[in-house]
Amino acid sequence: MKLYSYFRSSAAYRVRIALNLKGLDYEYAGVHLLRDGGEQLKAEYRAVNPDGIVPSLVDGDDVLTQSLAIIEYLEETHPEPPLLPKRPSDRAFVRAVAMQVACEIHPLDNLRVLKYLKHQVKVPDEVKDAWYRHWVETGFESLEKRLANDKRVGALTFGDTPTVADLCLVPQVFNARRFGIDVSAYPTIERIADHAASIDAFARAAPAQQPDAE
Amino acid sequence: MKLYSYFRSSAAYRVRIALNLKGLDYEYAGVHLLRDGGEQLKAEYRAVNPDGIVPSLVDGDDVLTQSLAIIEYLEETHPEPPLLPKRPSDRAFVRAVAMQVACEIHPLDNLRVLKYLKHQVKVPDEVKDAWYRHWVETGFESLEKRLANDKRVGALTFGDTPTVADLCLVPQVFNARRFGIDVSAYPTIERIADHAASIDAFARAAPAQQPDAE
Repeated sequence: MKLYSYFRSSAAYRVRIALNLKGLDYEYAGVHLLRDGGEQLKAEYRAVNPDGIVPSLVDGDDVLTQSLAIIEYLEETHPEPPLLPKRPSDRAFVRAVAMQVACEIHPLDNLRVLKYLKHQVKVPDEVKDAWYRHWVETGFESLEKRLANDKRVGALTFGDTPTVADLCLVPQVFNARRFGIDVSAYPTIERIADHAASIDAFARAAPAQQPDAE
Repeated sequence: MKLYSYFRSSAAYRVRIALNLKGLDYEYAGVHLLRDGGEQLKAEYRAVNPDGIVPSLVDGDDVLTQSLAIIEYLEETHPEPPLLPKRPSDRAFVRAVAMQVACEIHPLDNLRVLKYLKHQVKVPDEVKDAWYRHWVETGFESLEKRLANDKRVGALTFGDTPTVADLCLVPQVFNARRFGIDVSAYPTIERIADHAASIDAFARAAPAQQPDAE
């Protein structure tokens, strides 16, 4: 398998954790999201993934895109260790936590959106920073309430075993801290993310450990 | 089952289609996203779903949130008719199309984001409209390339049978047209969405058919 990734991409980070947890070897192909206006927008990468976003996972003849679709694929093709619980209502809980990050927070705060705000809407930096903060804080407030009150939460989102929810939380917390958000205001999120990040498969997926890290 | 919904919510619309395709009866609970500053933000609805967003599906003791997590739950608990293909790589394709809508387009163009742009960033209406258009057009251009070039596409996204991809495309096309986007620039998307929308389970889920339609 070959993963097109950028060391700081939250979505690529999720897939790197999944590949590590499943014990799958892969070739790392760095796509620099800033250099030359973004290598993800060049013809070479568009030939792999016309969307011009990372990650993409090449597995034989298949080119897979969208991080959560890739992770469900890895779960179906390499079921051990499982990244989702067994009961449908528990799976729905774990997927909902993952999607609160992947559909409610991250899409509003990723690089292309911040670039559009700056260059097209032409907002000052403090308005862009307030935007970033608003959507992380709105999302984390909801998530904190959910996680603080659900008996399924343990050392990680679902008991003590990594699930797709943790794969989304860790990169989002990393990203939030990079932008100066005080994550201690969300103690359950912080506790889960810090514990997860200490697990070897998560630690090896961290941005600083990637071949294209700067 | 009880569905908390708003007739115009794209995410609720996806779940309504899934419930109809599966032949599941449900009680409809309208949550008005605009009245009194938004009923979804009031204590009464927050007691059901602290996120303050629709949809939520109550099934027995479980409160399920996030439309795609709800649809995966329905797929697991009521497998017939299936809304995902059998082969993992085909499932990944269908899920990726769904997520291109649910993670790349819809989160940027939903009501709370447009409200934040208007009231907090204080952009003029033409900048807000350009924002809406930009993210729909960026997303639809990618999707059109993907769908126009994939042999799995038939009358619908995957052959001629409805999948979760179609459940996301139809509400997004409805929403885009409501904001004045010319969808004919994306002929494959338009053809699929219009065909899907004509299927009874989709037609009954349309905003105008809901008890809270205005």
